[in-house]
Amino acid sequence: MMKIVEGSIAKPKGFLATGLHCGIKESADSLDLGVVISEQPAVSAAVYTTNLFQAAPLHVTKQSIEKNEGKLQAVIVNSGNANACTGDRGWNDAQAMQQAVGEAFSIPTEMVGVASTGVIGEYLPMDKIQAGIRQLPPHVSEQSGPLFSKAILTTDLVEKTICVELSIDGQTITIAGAAKGSGMIHPNMATMLSFITTDAAIEPVFLQQILKKATDESFNMITVDGDTSTNDMVVVLANGLASNVMLTEQHPQAEAFYEALCFVMQDLAKKIARDGEGATKLIEVEVRQAPSIEAARQIAKSVIGSSLVKTAVYGADANWGRIICAVGYSGAQINPDLVDVLLGEIQVVKASFPVPFDEGLAKDYLEQENVKIVIDLHSGIEGAVAWGCDLTYDYVKINASYRT
Amino acid sequence: MMKIVEGSIAKPKGFLATGLHCGIKESADSLDLGVVISEQPAVSAAVYTTNLFQAAPLHVTKQSIEKNEGKLQAVIVNSGNANACTGDRGWNDAQAMQQAVGEAFSIPTEMVGVASTGVIGEYLPMDKIQAGIRQLPPHVSEQSGPLFSKAILTTDLVEKTICVELSIDGQTITIAGAAKGSGMIHPNMATMLSFITTDAAIEPVFLQQILKKATDESFNMITVDGDTSTNDMVVVLANGLASNVMLTEQHPQAEAFYEALCFVMQDLAKKIARDGEGATKLIEVEVRQAPSIEAARQIAKSVIGSSLVKTAVYGADANWGRIICAVGYSGAQINPDLVDVLLGEIQVVKASFPVPFDEGLAKDYLEQENVKIVIDLHSGIEGAVAWGCDLTYDYVKINASYRT
Repeated sequence: MMKIVEGSIAKPKGFLATGLHCGIKESADSLDLGVVISEQPAVSAAVYTTNLFQAAPLHVTKQSIEKNEGKLQAVIVNSGNANACTGDRGWNDAQAMQQAVGEAFSIPTEMVGVASTGVIGEYLPMDKIQAGIRQLPPHVSEQSGPLFSKAILTTDLVEKTICVELSIDGQTITIAGAAKGSGMIHPNMATMLSFITTDAAIEPVFLQQILKKATDESFNMITVDGDTSTNDMVVVLANGLASNVMLTEQHPQAEAFYEALCFVMQDLAKKIARDGEGATKLIEVEVRQAPSIEAARQIAKSVIGSSLVKTAVYGADANWGRIICAVGYSGAQINPDLVDVLLGEIQVVKASFPVPFDEGLAKDYLEQENVKIVIDLHSGIEGAVAWGCDLTYDYVKINASYRT
Repeated sequence: MMKIVEGSIAKPKGFLATGLHCGIKESADSLDLGVVISEQPAVSAAVYTTNLFQAAPLHVTKQSIEKNEGKLQAVIVNSGNANACTGDRGWNDAQAMQQAVGEAFSIPTEMVGVASTGVIGEYLPMDKIQAGIRQLPPHVSEQSGPLFSKAILTTDLVEKTICVELSIDGQTITIAGAAKGSGMIHPNMATMLSFITTDAAIEPVFLQQILKKATDESFNMITVDGDTSTNDMVVVLANGLASNVMLTEQHPQAEAFYEALCFVMQDLAKKIARDGEGATKLIEVEVRQAPSIEAARQIAKSVIGSSLVKTAVYGADANWGRIICAVGYSGAQINPDLVDVLLGEIQVVKASFPVPFDEGLAKDYLEQENVKIVIDLHSGIEGAVAWGCDLTYDYVKINASYRT
């Protein structure tokens, strides 16, 4: 019933967006300021990094959503500077961004969410940002939506967007998403930002509930390098213009909406993992027959996070010992005698014991761009999937010289 | 009172050792089988990996120490093959190694500890190993001790040994250690082996207690890549030939012995971290004024384990934002407004806020071979130190092609 369609974050009814270069980044070709705005206030929900050092814009966004009883009308995002570890001045700057957007678009200040990504510990160049914000209003449109996806990127190589449609109460509902993130990516909202718009009508508490649940099955199941950043957030705006019956837990199509939202978020999460700094491959780890969802997730994350597994996949080396090893130190309590491991369809371990396999076939499989590792624990009925990428020379290159 | 002296694992009174090439490794120059033996049964203690998949030799060693009420007389070690995930045949092979050593040296089988390190999931070439063991007896001596340190290495670039002397009850006590490990190194006994010999007389339960405590302050505080292996162990043999009064908790010089043991273990731990796969630098992270030892250790390990911190140090980039970020996601509950960060003597963050510093000086400091990061939490009286290394192109190179 759900289908993928062409379209940016500004595709759902009543949303407009754009992006421009205001001067935070040096190159005039690099967009560094983006806005998404709804024609009317939208029901909003958000999840934030678990890092103790939360950047100023997260606090400002959180306060605004609370103040408006779950509504926002616009989100302003800058890239190139995280406005993190910037103390009171950082707070003031995030609030000044909010105010400037309110004035530029003639909407209440507290209806504006704020997000930042980039270097930690430097002050925002507020003169450039404020001048940039003043230039935004004439440019927002559905057509400019793709510029928003560009403006939120840092070391990302590709834009990450997705748009789906489904029918609820006979109305076409559109859900669109844009995300950024390629380093400092780890379960629990690691340096990544994601913005999701929909024209669905939905009750705010229910939206927050399903956003949290879908985050646990998408963004919280990816890792690039195990670092959880100060600035991560996912914000959903739902402006209700599709005129469906208000979605709540009781709505007969609540599940269909949840699945579409989860699909959008998993798609963005996989795109982030695939674009991990220096990555050449997307790795998917599926854990089957686990005693609990927690155990399944712990093991999936442990394997996807192992530097030794990541380098082995980069080298197309069927080194299943490293996979077993990462299962063993995950912290999940499982029976260590029952574990099967498959690389794609190729079984390499049965009941925790090596089975003969064709090394050439395994190498061919691991040389593909999408690699799947299956771990069957034979210890229950739960499962989990995590995504990550290989660890390459280029990861080191990018991160040995990011700031300077 | 304690002093560092020249000497191998065979330096303490009554210990002999050697190493040779038996053919597990391809190159005839690479030693792959080592033994250390005491003239008389020695009080023994050991700690093992926390990985659920413990390799066969660990079980065999553990059983032997228990069977002998805390005594061993020899330890046999092979490198090049971990004898892990090898099922019943792996058990039989580990026991066959034990038996062959017992026969070769005419000591009871269960007086022999066994350790293996190398590739996971392949069977040991027992014919080569048994032939090798038969060749060992004529070669064990104090002079051959350095060959043992060579025989236990895998991807290590350098041998890791240390020897100290101290006086207890007017007797000279010697403690010597040899270790291996350069990848899969992470708190909780990650692929590393360490063997410690001493001629001290010590009560077995007390030895086990202080070994555990010293492990928490040394080997459990290093990380190379966050992977905890299936084969790690630390074994101490204390043969009592120094004729001191039996060391127990009540002995007036118990603390001095503990400190010497801890020094030996920390020295080996640092040597392992410095020899981390591809490493060019030793990084030390010291956490000060923490609310608890657990919080201090959690934060020290989180920072030393961050790929982003490790690549920044490799690139000599004073990117303190990544340090603060790793403090924030460590899981330790601290006040996020009071944190100071120093690179050596150079303060870069005060009360969680950037302070101006000389970038040139910081770069010079980070270009040194030994880099120290100090994190002062201003939230208590506890502290911890962790050691690790930078993350470099060579780490990727080594691990993308280790097995094949």
